[in-house]
Amino acid sequence: MKIQLKKIKPKNYKKQLGQIPGSVIYTGKKDSQKLFIEAFDYNKDFCNEIELQSIEEAFTFGLENAITWINVNGLNHVKEIEALGNNYNLHPLVLEDVVNISQRPKIDEYDDYIFVVLKMLYYDINSIIVSEQVSFVLGKDYLLTFQESEGDVFDSVRDRIRHGKGRVRNKQSDYLLYVLIDAIVDHYFHVLEVLGDKIENFETNLFNGNIGDNANKDIQNLKREVLRLRRAIFPLREVINRIEKNDNTLIQNKTITYYRDVYDHLIQVSENIEIYREMTWSLMDMYMTSISNKMNEVMKVLTIMASIFIPLTFIAGIYGMNFEYIPELKFRYGYFVIWGIMIFIFLAMLYYFKRKKWL
Amino acid sequence: MKIQLKKIKPKNYKKQLGQIPGSVIYTGKKDSQKLFIEAFDYNKDFCNEIELQSIEEAFTFGLENAITWINVNGLNHVKEIEALGNNYNLHPLVLEDVVNISQRPKIDEYDDYIFVVLKMLYYDINSIIVSEQVSFVLGKDYLLTFQESEGDVFDSVRDRIRHGKGRVRNKQSDYLLYVLIDAIVDHYFHVLEVLGDKIENFETNLFNGNIGDNANKDIQNLKREVLRLRRAIFPLREVINRIEKNDNTLIQNKTITYYRDVYDHLIQVSENIEIYREMTWSLMDMYMTSISNKMNEVMKVLTIMASIFIPLTFIAGIYGMNFEYIPELKFRYGYFVIWGIMIFIFLAMLYYFKRKKWL
Amino acid sequence: MKIQLKKIKPKNYKKQLGQIPGSVIYTGKKDSQKLFIEAFDYNKDFCNEIELQSIEEAFTFGLENAITWINVNGLNHVKEIEALGNNYNLHPLVLEDVVNISQRPKIDEYDDYIFVVLKMLYYDINSIIVSEQVSFVLGKDYLLTFQESEGDVFDSVRDRIRHGKGRVRNKQSDYLLYVLIDAIVDHYFHVLEVLGDKIENFETNLFNGNIGDNANKDIQNLKREVLRLRRAIFPLREVINRIEKNDNTLIQNKTITYYRDVYDHLIQVSENIEIYREMTWSLMDMYMTSISNKMNEVMKVLTIMASIFIPLTFIAGIYGMNFEYIPELKFRYGYFVIWGIMIFIFLAMLYYFKRKKWL
Amino acid sequence: MKIQLKKIKPKNYKKQLGQIPGSVIYTGKKDSQKLFIEAFDYNKDFCNEIELQSIEEAFTFGLENAITWINVNGLNHVKEIEALGNNYNLHPLVLEDVVNISQRPKIDEYDDYIFVVLKMLYYDINSIIVSEQVSFVLGKDYLLTFQESEGDVFDSVRDRIRHGKGRVRNKQSDYLLYVLIDAIVDHYFHVLEVLGDKIENFETNLFNGNIGDNANKDIQNLKREVLRLRRAIFPLREVINRIEKNDNTLIQNKTITYYRDVYDHLIQVSENIEIYREMTWSLMDMYMTSISNKMNEVMKVLTIMASIFIPLTFIAGIYGMNFEYIPELKFRYGYFVIWGIMIFIFLAMLYYFKRKKWL
Amino acid sequence: MKIQLKKIKPKNYKKQLGQIPGSVIYTGKKDSQKLFIEAFDYNKDFCNEIELQSIEEAFTFGLENAITWINVNGLNHVKEIEALGNNYNLHPLVLEDVVNISQRPKIDEYDDYIFVVLKMLYYDINSIIVSEQVSFVLGKDYLLTFQESEGDVFDSVRDRIRHGKGRVRNKQSDYLLYVLIDAIVDHYFHVLEVLGDKIENFETNLFNGNIGDNANKDIQNLKREVLRLRRAIFPLREVINRIEKNDNTLIQNKTITYYRDVYDHLIQVSENIEIYREMTWSLMDMYMTSISNKMNEVMKVLTIMASIFIPLTFIAGIYGMNFEYIPELKFRYGYFVIWGIMIFIFLAMLYYFKRKKWL
Repeated sequence: MKIQLKKIKPKNYKKQLGQIPGSVIYTGKKDSQKLFIEAFDYNKDFCNEIELQSIEEAFTFGLENAITWINVNGLNHVKEIEALGNNYNLHPLVLEDVVNISQRPKIDEYDDYIFVVLKMLYYDINSIIVSEQVSFVLGKDYLLTFQESEGDVFDSVRDRIRHGKGRVRNKQSDYLLYVLIDAIVDHYFHVLEVLGDKIENFETNLFNGNIGDNANKDIQNLKREVLRLRRAIFPLREVINRIEKNDNTLIQNKTITYYRDVYDHLIQVSENIEIYREMTWSLMDMYMTSISNKMNEVMKVLTIMASIFIPLTFIAGIYGMNFEYIPELKFRYGYFVIWGIMIFIFLAMLYYFKRKKWL
Repeated sequence: MKIQLKKIKPKNYKKQLGQIPGSVIYTGKKDSQKLFIEAFDYNKDFCNEIELQSIEEAFTFGLENAITWINVNGLNHVKEIEALGNNYNLHPLVLEDVVNISQRPKIDEYDDYIFVVLKMLYYDINSIIVSEQVSFVLGKDYLLTFQESEGDVFDSVRDRIRHGKGRVRNKQSDYLLYVLIDAIVDHYFHVLEVLGDKIENFETNLFNGNIGDNANKDIQNLKREVLRLRRAIFPLREVINRIEKNDNTLIQNKTITYYRDVYDHLIQVSENIEIYREMTWSLMDMYMTSISNKMNEVMKVLTIMASIFIPLTFIAGIYGMNFEYIPELKFRYGYFVIWGIMIFIFLAMLYYFKRKKWL
Repeated sequence: MKIQLKKIKPKNYKKQLGQIPGSVIYTGKKDSQKLFIEAFDYNKDFCNEIELQSIEEAFTFGLENAITWINVNGLNHVKEIEALGNNYNLHPLVLEDVVNISQRPKIDEYDDYIFVVLKMLYYDINSIIVSEQVSFVLGKDYLLTFQESEGDVFDSVRDRIRHGKGRVRNKQSDYLLYVLIDAIVDHYFHVLEVLGDKIENFETNLFNGNIGDNANKDIQNLKREVLRLRRAIFPLREVINRIEKNDNTLIQNKTITYYRDVYDHLIQVSENIEIYREMTWSLMDMYMTSISNKMNEVMKVLTIMASIFIPLTFIAGIYGMNFEYIPELKFRYGYFVIWGIMIFIFLAMLYYFKRKKWL
Repeated sequence: MKIQLKKIKPKNYKKQLGQIPGSVIYTGKKDSQKLFIEAFDYNKDFCNEIELQSIEEAFTFGLENAITWINVNGLNHVKEIEALGNNYNLHPLVLEDVVNISQRPKIDEYDDYIFVVLKMLYYDINSIIVSEQVSFVLGKDYLLTFQESEGDVFDSVRDRIRHGKGRVRNKQSDYLLYVLIDAIVDHYFHVLEVLGDKIENFETNLFNGNIGDNANKDIQNLKREVLRLRRAIFPLREVINRIEKNDNTLIQNKTITYYRDVYDHLIQVSENIEIYREMTWSLMDMYMTSISNKMNEVMKVLTIMASIFIPLTFIAGIYGMNFEYIPELKFRYGYFVIWGIMIFIFLAMLYYFKRKKWL
Repeated sequence: MKIQLKKIKPKNYKKQLGQIPGSVIYTGKKDSQKLFIEAFDYNKDFCNEIELQSIEEAFTFGLENAITWINVNGLNHVKEIEALGNNYNLHPLVLEDVVNISQRPKIDEYDDYIFVVLKMLYYDINSIIVSEQVSFVLGKDYLLTFQESEGDVFDSVRDRIRHGKGRVRNKQSDYLLYVLIDAIVDHYFHVLEVLGDKIENFETNLFNGNIGDNANKDIQNLKREVLRLRRAIFPLREVINRIEKNDNTLIQNKTITYYRDVYDHLIQVSENIEIYREMTWSLMDMYMTSISNKMNEVMKVLTIMASIFIPLTFIAGIYGMNFEYIPELKFRYGYFVIWGIMIFIFLAMLYYFKRKKWL
């Protein structure tokens, strides 16, 4: 049977060897993804939401005195993304990073905008963790977001904008960035919860002896899942921290309190990941002791069986000898006496092993 | 038998997915907790203590030139807490944190008040560690405290205020905050002491061989208890440190000496936790060696029994053969000579194993 | 059989004992390498590429208003390198470092130039990792590069210079340094990918039980490969970081964005190395458990065989005894009854082991 | 047999639950200790040493232009200590710390004095490490020291003061503090040396196989002893470092060189502790391998015995069968031929095991 | 057999208990070492080298406008060293440190001179690592060096001074200090190379199964050797770093480039030590798996022998029974049929174990 291991090796690490820096080349696998651009334009008085049909519409979208949010799905459409980037005057490296889906969470500050990359984690229908890269470009009165494919964790935010719930319509683009990141971080908690359940189930099975031959592999997979989460989440702390400490006027002082709150949540997430890490690591030790315990049990059965019957067989062997003169053999009840002796030895052995707590 | 493991997964990590930031939503389980508000108003000349019947009474409670302490039990009463918060002009995120009981210990400084969250640990009647979140809002002449349910470690403080014992009546609200935190930290020592006893008992049992099949699980549970304490206590050091280093006029210079004292105690607690951590971690190794030692013992019994009786059985087998001509069988005392040889081999084997110290 | 282990000990660590500091002595093994000097002279309007026949030609090579790149292969030609160095006014220690191929990646800043050493990693024809030292001397309008032997990862860069692709012809020497380092770091990703495949293959084999007697050694070799990569790559982060933070006018502000991009890539590489490190380290644990599992299986076979047949042999022994009076022996169907009993015991044992899941 | 483990749990961590901060309450066990106060008054010209009969004598003790050293033994006499503290104007928390013997080494700087707590380690008559808390209050021209009971490591210092040896009589109180701390740190080296001997003895016994059933426990006790030393000594580095870096005029510049020397010694001690730590930790691994080696030996004996005699017994069994027609049984020398075959098999087996190096 | 372990416990840690600080007391073992003082006086024009007969000659040695290097061998001659120190106005603690050979590498800066202590490592004739303490006192135009005994790694430096090779005669005393330290660091590389060979040899033997009963102890000794090197070399990095960062005019700016070079070498050495550390630590794991593999082999032999012959013996036992009516016994070819059955079982077993790859 060929066993499929989860891959640890991130595929498509980066651009092709020999590629010119700043080339905008999509590195993911979803090549046939449809381009989908949704746009919001709002301030505290109104909200306009449309689906743009072409990237050119985005160039003129957005009123003055309003916050514009343009969300692009489909990173394989590099031309359109490049056009949008040029319209917003983005650095070539930013565009390269947007479509290169193996970025580490990071923040780059430019003169007129802030570029943030992070990982959105959620469970798909088969309850496998999906890690999707989301890029944000925060400008004075706009926010651009880029996702690889449709489906995200922002529906509650869209709802709040549409219906003016919460504070989002009264605030600037930096607050919009905050609520989107906050929605992502909320999902981290959910992902962690599911992972915690997996680890606990495995442990319970281990303690109950319900583990198959793949325990070794299952532990490895749990380890990797923890490592993947770590890699996706830990660098984000530094990103949020830099937003907080930031001098940039793009992030207002009033909003920083909110980012501090996200930061606190991230610290909580990180601590939980570290605890899961310790727990998955110690699963291996527990598995080892459970193997040793099993072997102990096997050995005990062997030892008890052998220790009881080998001496008895020896006695039987004695009286199977063909010496001409073995006086016991002539005794009328010799056979029964020997049975008695054997039963006595048998019981003594049982008692001995009982006292040793091997039975 | 279904084994119940202590949960490692903190339930109700945080707000619901998609919740609006700043929503004041209680995340705990004690939904039917009664609201209980006690209030102290004191200065060095008088002390007034009453139980408030409604949150509105709190708005007007407190004389000038006096310190006001309002202690709220029952975080499920979010409306009342929100009303109190608005009366004291607290930031929405503060109120969200007060009723979200999965906070990490932290301090947030606002212009007019300091917000501190920490974990109160004590043993309940079944000697299970209870970790309850306590929030403090320290203002110029007031201190608000919020607890999930009745029952806390502050009785000695109440007593001191009532009867003017110690310095508390002569000092400001920052000193009141100190004595409350000090009372909580004192209980950490007590909790640690009990945990230390558990670890030592387990070790003694391990050394004496009095460990059942659940040793693996017991060790895991000890590990987790240590991790839980770590998580509850370690971040508090940073909190106290920031109080000490603080420029805020709310904490007076004279009081900082006292916070330094609490900080010293926390360092002591942390060191002890680290030592317990090392000890629980090495329990696994000890358990492994104890399993191996047991297997060694089992193997020795088997080896001794087999090594002694297999050769003897062979000899008996020899003279059980039916060859027509086996001269020894005719000897008059052949049988007894063979017995002699067997007893000699038996004794030689015993001596051999004795010398090897296997017996 | 003599087993060849990959060497961990870097040979030729450093200069000979007692050597005068600043002596330019080649420490590698490729003593018969031919000297090969290629030179580029370009600006945005033209590009001149020639192979220099002697080091003296290099002294006068290069027009004003153009960037000069001189690439020297063959570090054994120390005289020529010294001559070139003196022409460019390089410090003796720089020249010593250029030809000493056991340098750690580092950056040294001098008044007129910056000296950078790093490791170029690629796979040779036998898919063995080659680590070759490359030194860079970045001056105001020139870049010198030194390699031990021909063959490098710069072909795409040469191509871009020749044909004016990308931005390289429009930029200064600091940008040329960037594209060369970027090409090297791109290859790190490739090397990592191959290493990741190796680790995964080993794991799959381990889980499937397809591991030979050299598993121990294979794991050691994987560990070392990871350590070698760490040692070659980790210090480079600091080097790039110092280029970024640098006050030197040699690195222009506009170019720093690009170095930050390289830095991000290096962090990604480092994280992956750390993950591979954890994985190779835990291979040992997995191997241990797989050995223990095998032993468990061996023991089970032994225990089952012994536990079934030893009691049966005992029964046969009983009726092999020669007592004169053993009533059962006279029974007409005694033999068949005994067979029945034995078969019953046999089946009972099978059932017992089945229920214990040993079969 | 009830095994006594050394306690890891520090008893009497701190004050009683609910105790008022600043309460001067003795937390140790030596409740019947006699109060003993010795006092030195000296400058470079004279030295006056007396034993004070009551604490009141201390209030007036000490001439102008002289250094006063008052050493108090017997921390259970809290009243007297409080009186002395009030006379010297000490902060209530200082007095609380003096009599609370579970302090961590620390330094607190007040306006007029510096308060230092550390641990004095020495071996008592039963060569058990005694850890006694010593507190120092360093004022402009006085030094107060507090010890739990009589017996300390300061005799050589007393001698130097009495007879004017060394520089101590020519220097200020900060130098006196230095020589006392230096005497304590000197004893750390001695304690470490003894611990090193214990570890080495255990290792030698482990390698020689002279370890009893308590090896597990002995290793645990060594681990704990190392942890205890760490806890007593490591924080002191920070204390001395802060004395060195200190702006306070109480510590003169000239004396700082001496504190730097103590600091160097502490770093040496710390390094040795870390090495002992690594060694005790790896004792467990060594013990595990020694157990496995023993089991290997046991298994070899069993395997050799069983492998040799089981086939021989089988052969004997063959010719013990009662078939009517077994031709070999009729052969004249069949019995002897069978013996020959058996001896051949026996020798072949021996040779086989010899070649495998199992014998 | 008494096994000699290499000592981990540094003997003569420090001065005697109760010793006065600043006492110049030799702590080593080479008490009968002859005093040997060599002196160099040089500038770029001349070089004067003599062996001084008494310490007094040193007081007047050295011309103006020349660099004086006085090298003292024989730390047991404390009087002479004290005299020299007083002549050069050295602090008593410096002299105490010079003759106390258990110093940690360190640097102390005084007003007129810099005091540096480090460890010189080389292999003696028995290829055992010798660690000898060397102290340097660097003054404006002089350098004092102190060694415990004759024999050092400075011969190439002496040669360069005598014959004016390299730059040393053209430079100041700070450059002389550099070349001496550089010579010492060069030897670290050599020592590491030899250690690397030892580790690799051990590994190769482990993989080939050529390890005796002392493997456990050999691994421990390798660990300790690595720890000793760490302890001797790691603190030196900080020393060199402080020389580099130093404001002192004694170290000229031009020379700092050279110290940076030494620092780079030390980082290389440190990295290699860390790699050796990881490798020696994982030797224990490898040893464990090799023991387990061996036990597996032993168990397989036992299991195969027992599994084959126990059933066969049982069959023989069956037909050894003495029932009156066993029909098979009467069959003409019963004996041969039974042999056939046995051989079939035997072959089936062999095939089974072959397929399981146990044979």
